Amino acid sequence: PPGRKVLIVYAHQEPKSLNGSLKRVAVEELSKQGCSVMVSDLYEMQFEPRARRNDIVGCLHNSEEFNYGLETWKAYQRGGLSSDLIEEQKKVQEADLLIFQFPLYWFSMPAIMKGWMDRVLVQGFAYEFPNCYDSGLLKNKLALFSFTTGGSKEAYAKGSISGDIRYLLWPMQHGIMHFCGVRVLAPHICFAPEHVSEEKRKEMLIAWAQRLKTLWKEEPINCSPEWYFK
Amino acid sequence: PPGRKVLIVYAHQEPKSLNGSLKRVAVEELSKQGCSVMVSDLYEMQFEPRARRNDIVGCLHNSEEFNYGLETWKAYQRGGLSSDLIEEQKKVQEADLLIFQFPLYWFSMPAIMKGWMDRVLVQGFAYEFPNCYDSGLLKNKLALFSFTTGGSKEAYAKGSISGDIRYLLWPMQHGIMHFCGVRVLAPHICFAPEHVSEEKRKEMLIAWAQRLKTLWKEEPINCSPEWYFK
Repeated sequence: PPGRKVLIVYAHQEPKSLNGSLKRVAVEELSKQGCSVMVSDLYEMQFEPRARRNDIVGCLHNSEEFNYGLETWKAYQRGGLSSDLIEEQKKVQEADLLIFQFPLYWFSMPAIMKGWMDRVLVQGFAYEFPNCYDSGLLKNKLALFSFTTGGSKEAYAKGSISGDIRYLLWPMQHGIMHFCGVRVLAPHICFAPEHVSEEKRKEMLIAWAQRLKTLWKEEPINCSPEWYFK
Repeated sequence: PPGRKVLIVYAHQEPKSLNGSLKRVAVEELSKQGCSVMVSDLYEMQFEPRARRNDIVGCLHNSEEFNYGLETWKAYQRGGLSSDLIEEQKKVQEADLLIFQFPLYWFSMPAIMKGWMDRVLVQGFAYEFPNCYDSGLLKNKLALFSFTTGGSKEAYAKGSISGDIRYLLWPMQHGIMHFCGVRVLAPHICFAPEHVSEEKRKEMLIAWAQRLKTLWKEEPINCSPEWYFK
C-alpha cells in the first residue's frame, strides 16, 4: 500500500540471473503498489562481509583485546560505526519489510549476505538484552527470505537426504530475524531454476509478482520450533 | 597419531581471544601427537569471502550470463581457479581432519568462514553428481566444528527459545560437510566464555586439550535428521 517502505537486500553477481529477475519483479510490483523500494545490491556495492577493526571509527573501548561484538555495540552508541554500516542501518530503520533475495549456497545465504547480517545487525541497533526475540528492537518489521536452490523440491522433502527445506531456515529466520524481533513471512522458494525450461522460469517470475500483490494481507509464520521441525 | 594431517580453519580477529587460545591448544596438542598441522587463519590472511568473477582465471565458459557454480566447476577442471582457492584446496586434499574454530555469529559461522566454504568447496573438487553425501569426493576425511557461543548452555536447550544447539548444526555439518562425504565428529562447544570466570575459561582450554588426546578413537556422529531433530 502507498507509503510502505521496503528494503530488498540482494546478492547475485549477474543481473540476467533468475535472482536478478526476481529482484526486478519485486521492485516493479511494489513500486506499482505505491511502496517506496530501496535496494542493497551487495555485489554491485562490493559490500564488505568481514567483521573487522575498520568497522569502528576512532578509538576502541578495549584496544588490548579486540572483541567485535563489544566494540560495535559501544561504537553504535557513540555514533562511531563505519559509514557503510550506518547507511545500511538507516535503510533497515526506515523499512517496514525486508526482502532477502539470494541463491542458496550450502544450505544458507552467500557469505556476502551473511556478512551483511554479521555487520549491520549490531547490539544496540537490532537487539539489546533483554530485548530480543519478540521484544527485539526491530519489532513491527517484516522479513521474507526469497531464494533459489540447486536441488529440486523433492530433494528438500522431509525424509529425503537433504531434509525438509524448513530445517535450514531455522538459523536465518529464527536465529537472525526473530531474534531481532522481526516477524517472518513464509519464504518464497524457486526450486532448481537451472534445471527447468525457460517457460517454467517465466512462470516463477509471474508467481512471485502474484504473491506480492497480496503480500500485505499475509500473516507471519508462527516462528517456533514446531513450524520448523514438526 | 604420527603422520596424520590436520587443517585448522580459524576465524577470529584477536589472537588473545578464547578462540585464539583454543586454536593454539589444538596446534600444540596435535603436534605433540606427531600430527602435521596446517592453519588457515582467515582474518590474518585477509581471506576473501565473496564469490566473484575474479575466482576464475582467464576466459569464462559463458561470459553472457555469469553463473558462479558453473564457472568455478569448469575452471576447476582446467586448473583455472584463482591461486588462493587452489592453495586452500591443496590443504583440504592433504588433510585427514578439518577443524573449524570460530565464534558463533547469528546461529552460524562468521561470513569470512562461510566464504571459505562457498569458494573452496567447488563442484568437481568437493562433490560431483552423483557423488555427494556418503559418496562425496572428500570421503575418508573427518571434520569437527569447534566454536564459542554468546548464549549459555541453558539458552540452547531443547524447549528454550533458542532451541536445541543441534538445530543450527544441520546446515554446517550436514548441508556442507556430509554433502562432501566428510564424516563429522561431535562438535566442541564452549558456551558463553565471556560470561564466566578466567578460571572457567582455563578449564575450557584444558577440556579441549583432553578431548584431542583421544580424538582419533572417536566415532563420527550419525549424520541423519534423527541426530539433529529427535
